[in-house]
Amino acid sequence: MGGAGFTLGQLAATLKGTVDGDTTRVVIGVASLETAGPQHIAFVADGRYRQAALSSRAGAFLAADDVQGLPAPVIRCREPRLTLIELLHLFHPPASPNAGIDASARVAPDARVHPTATVSALAVVEAGAVIGAHAHLHPLVYVGPGAEIGEDSVLHPHVVVRDGVRVGRRVIIHAGAVLGADGFGFTWDGAAHRKIPQVGSVIVEDDVEIGANATIDRGTLGPTIVRRGVKIDNLVMVAHNVEIGEDTVIAAQTGISGSCKVGRGVVLGGQVGIGDHVSIGDGAMLSSQTGVISDVAAGLKLGGTYGRPLPEFFRIWVAQAQLPEMLRRLRALERRVEELTKGE
Amino acid sequence: MGGAGFTLGQLAATLKGTVDGDTTRVVIGVASLETAGPQHIAFVADGRYRQAALSSRAGAFLAADDVQGLPAPVIRCREPRLTLIELLHLFHPPASPNAGIDASARVAPDARVHPTATVSALAVVEAGAVIGAHAHLHPLVYVGPGAEIGEDSVLHPHVVVRDGVRVGRRVIIHAGAVLGADGFGFTWDGAAHRKIPQVGSVIVEDDVEIGANATIDRGTLGPTIVRRGVKIDNLVMVAHNVEIGEDTVIAAQTGISGSCKVGRGVVLGGQVGIGDHVSIGDGAMLSSQTGVISDVAAGLKLGGTYGRPLPEFFRIWVAQAQLPEMLRRLRALERRVEELTKGE
Amino acid sequence: MGGAGFTLGQLAATLKGTVDGDTTRVVIGVASLETAGPQHIAFVADGRYRQAALSSRAGAFLAADDVQGLPAPVIRCREPRLTLIELLHLFHPPASPNAGIDASARVAPDARVHPTATVSALAVVEAGAVIGAHAHLHPLVYVGPGAEIGEDSVLHPHVVVRDGVRVGRRVIIHAGAVLGADGFGFTWDGAAHRKIPQVGSVIVEDDVEIGANATIDRGTLGPTIVRRGVKIDNLVMVAHNVEIGEDTVIAAQTGISGSCKVGRGVVLGGQVGIGDHVSIGDGAMLSSQTGVISDVAAGLKLGGTYGRPLPEFFRIWVAQAQLPEMLRRLRALERRVEELTKGE
Repeated sequence: MGGAGFTLGQLAATLKGTVDGDTTRVVIGVASLETAGPQHIAFVADGRYRQAALSSRAGAFLAADDVQGLPAPVIRCREPRLTLIELLHLFHPPASPNAGIDASARVAPDARVHPTATVSALAVVEAGAVIGAHAHLHPLVYVGPGAEIGEDSVLHPHVVVRDGVRVGRRVIIHAGAVLGADGFGFTWDGAAHRKIPQVGSVIVEDDVEIGANATIDRGTLGPTIVRRGVKIDNLVMVAHNVEIGEDTVIAAQTGISGSCKVGRGVVLGGQVGIGDHVSIGDGAMLSSQTGVISDVAAGLKLGGTYGRPLPEFFRIWVAQAQLPEMLRRLRALERRVEELTKGE
Repeated sequence: MGGAGFTLGQLAATLKGTVDGDTTRVVIGVASLETAGPQHIAFVADGRYRQAALSSRAGAFLAADDVQGLPAPVIRCREPRLTLIELLHLFHPPASPNAGIDASARVAPDARVHPTATVSALAVVEAGAVIGAHAHLHPLVYVGPGAEIGEDSVLHPHVVVRDGVRVGRRVIIHAGAVLGADGFGFTWDGAAHRKIPQVGSVIVEDDVEIGANATIDRGTLGPTIVRRGVKIDNLVMVAHNVEIGEDTVIAAQTGISGSCKVGRGVVLGGQVGIGDHVSIGDGAMLSSQTGVISDVAAGLKLGGTYGRPLPEFFRIWVAQAQLPEMLRRLRALERRVEELTKGE
Repeated sequence: MGGAGFTLGQLAATLKGTVDGDTTRVVIGVASLETAGPQHIAFVADGRYRQAALSSRAGAFLAADDVQGLPAPVIRCREPRLTLIELLHLFHPPASPNAGIDASARVAPDARVHPTATVSALAVVEAGAVIGAHAHLHPLVYVGPGAEIGEDSVLHPHVVVRDGVRVGRRVIIHAGAVLGADGFGFTWDGAAHRKIPQVGSVIVEDDVEIGANATIDRGTLGPTIVRRGVKIDNLVMVAHNVEIGEDTVIAAQTGISGSCKVGRGVVLGGQVGIGDHVSIGDGAMLSSQTGVISDVAAGLKLGGTYGRPLPEFFRIWVAQAQLPEMLRRLRALERRVEELTKGE
């Protein structure tokens, strides 16, 4: 199996599922409902995709129990979304790069690179840096003086990890992301903005993922902290001295200003802006393009300018459509009452 | 001609135009109306720039027919904007870099680099990648395993094209842009966000331009697709599984969420946000900072939160200025009616 | 002193301040109020931080005169914020890298690199570029043909300065920033968007700081200009032909469209958007997420869509909360007046 694909029976056994239909059918890859052919297995997340599944040419499906009547054999599992991950790993086993330091990489003599780590072509590892076991630095990565990259972490091409930044284990940093640039801190001396030295650092805990071209600035004195399991999308800005709680998810192009504390399990939509020194409570949710400048209590779901509770935000948005007409009605009413008053 | 400049007669002949005035005048470069001197030719796009042209010190103009009375000789053409492009190419002929692979570049033995292509200093081309004829990889560019760069395409410094991404012909990718980073896909397993392997790719068709530090993520299973002629500005985010139709123009810092379908000839202003799975019809226009979370029909012009038709959006914006006063007037009216009712 | 720390007496003498308390106490570093221990000196910016200072374990404080009753010795100075900068420089003296060109850097034969400049590993300096005295190019930096980097300027890893761009003295450019990418200029020829060659440049004057992954595009014909003392945060977009006045401050993720003129001493919050050809007067302030498409007079403080004066913006925001209820009240009033009219 492998190169020649898997039978559905083999897959079901590995994935601890069952097969509705022909267990001997062979599939050679996973594809989307739209692009799958008879040689592919496609994923049906839930009933919303039933119609797309009915018109799919897929040779097999991985589907939730509530999706019935599909036009090809189906692998059934308790947790189809988690099983999809296993299925993808079967067909796309994670690459295991050749350990060692490429001859063209520039590694300082006193940097400590674990023998199982990979430092690829034209990567730079500065003095005193530490690269953990099985860590993978792609080409053209920069790891600054005294920085630490934990076990099994992957830094994609052109990632910059500046001096003293600590990156935990199993962290994935996508291409072009910058960790540890100076915080944006100045004070006016009467004639010019004077730069406040940014001597803090960045701490990224285990199991974090950071998107392409995102930036996480170092703290002014202490660290900027990204806790375990946080997922950060592309082009996100995390300013100096911010702390982001465990398992929080931050969509693309969101900006978090200096000294904010974002709780655990928070969800920030795309292009959200958070003013400085703001606390966001655990489990709060800010919808896309929301801007907040004061604290947000745990569990709240907010939207829009200064963050209103979502139902209120929607009601206002709906009512706004009538605002020009309301103005006319108000004027008409004023005239009518004026007449009534005269008539009195 | 060339180093010593061109006479207006020479330029008019090359540009298939005519000269109003002295055909023997020599100009050595193109400059803006504000900065041009007697040795420059300046461009007058239309009548709106007439005043600036009258006070310009330019030695000559390239101008539309409706701009008359200019203080120096004028080259007239049918399509002045298109002619400006030719004029600029005359004074700034596109560089033709030396073909070949720089000694400091790292090209995998089984990568196929066309003999007419240029791979500059410290660029990396991984295994199985294909670099087409006359393609130009600037210094420090990264092209991942199996990626393809089409003929005549230009990748500026620090561009990252990850594994398996296909870039068409005559594509320009500006510095720091990242193609093919993982899509932002996770599923909660009850204790942690589990990463969904992103095994799709990115397809960029011919004649596309992608701005500096923009990011275009790979699809989860299938490709993210950017169709022929699309123009994408700096710091734009295109998420996984998005498809962008031909000739669509996307201004800076706009974000397009996962699985969106953007039609042909669409115009997205700057800092626009589009929620996931949204379809934008052909020729639609979203003004800057618009946010939409549901489908937009072809040809609509929308603005603001959730995208209202622009005339409605403007009317609401104007009426809002009166909202605090309306509230007072409404209270006054309520009191007046209360009195009238009592008086009844 | 130095490695073993400083006594408060030594610090006060150097900083031209006085000590309230034990002048012989030794501190070995600066820390935030929250993280400081007895060996640290912490900064109390003003009375708002008094409570945090009272519960801090810091061994000493640098504090403004209006903060009294602190639980450890205090260094008092006229300008505590400016003194903090000096204090940080005492404990973190700026690194002075080894001058010279790293063996792995690629410097064109006709580039002029000052003997006191540092060109680090795998940096690229193209033909005709000029690198000034004490300038510091970090690893993997790209400086294009004919570009100039002034004295004492620092380019962090992966910075791209394209051809012909001129960077002044004491400029700091953070990792991944791109200066001189093509402006976003096209004209429709009836069948396709034709690229207008962007042959202008970028001029960055002295004492500017530019954030990580920010982009500053070259002008179409003339230069894009960033004047002396401007501070630009991460992921900011400055489009072609923009001019930004002295000492203006631009927070993260803000976008300035083509040909804008931003005055001196302007403050732009985060995620602000400015439409093309807009002038922003000296000293104006746009709060975060503001979008403007027409000129802003000097000194105005605006917020929201199209930029309303902040007090008006706040009043509207407050009134909006009542909008749905206003609609109901208006209807009720209309019915009531209708009845009154009938009763008349």
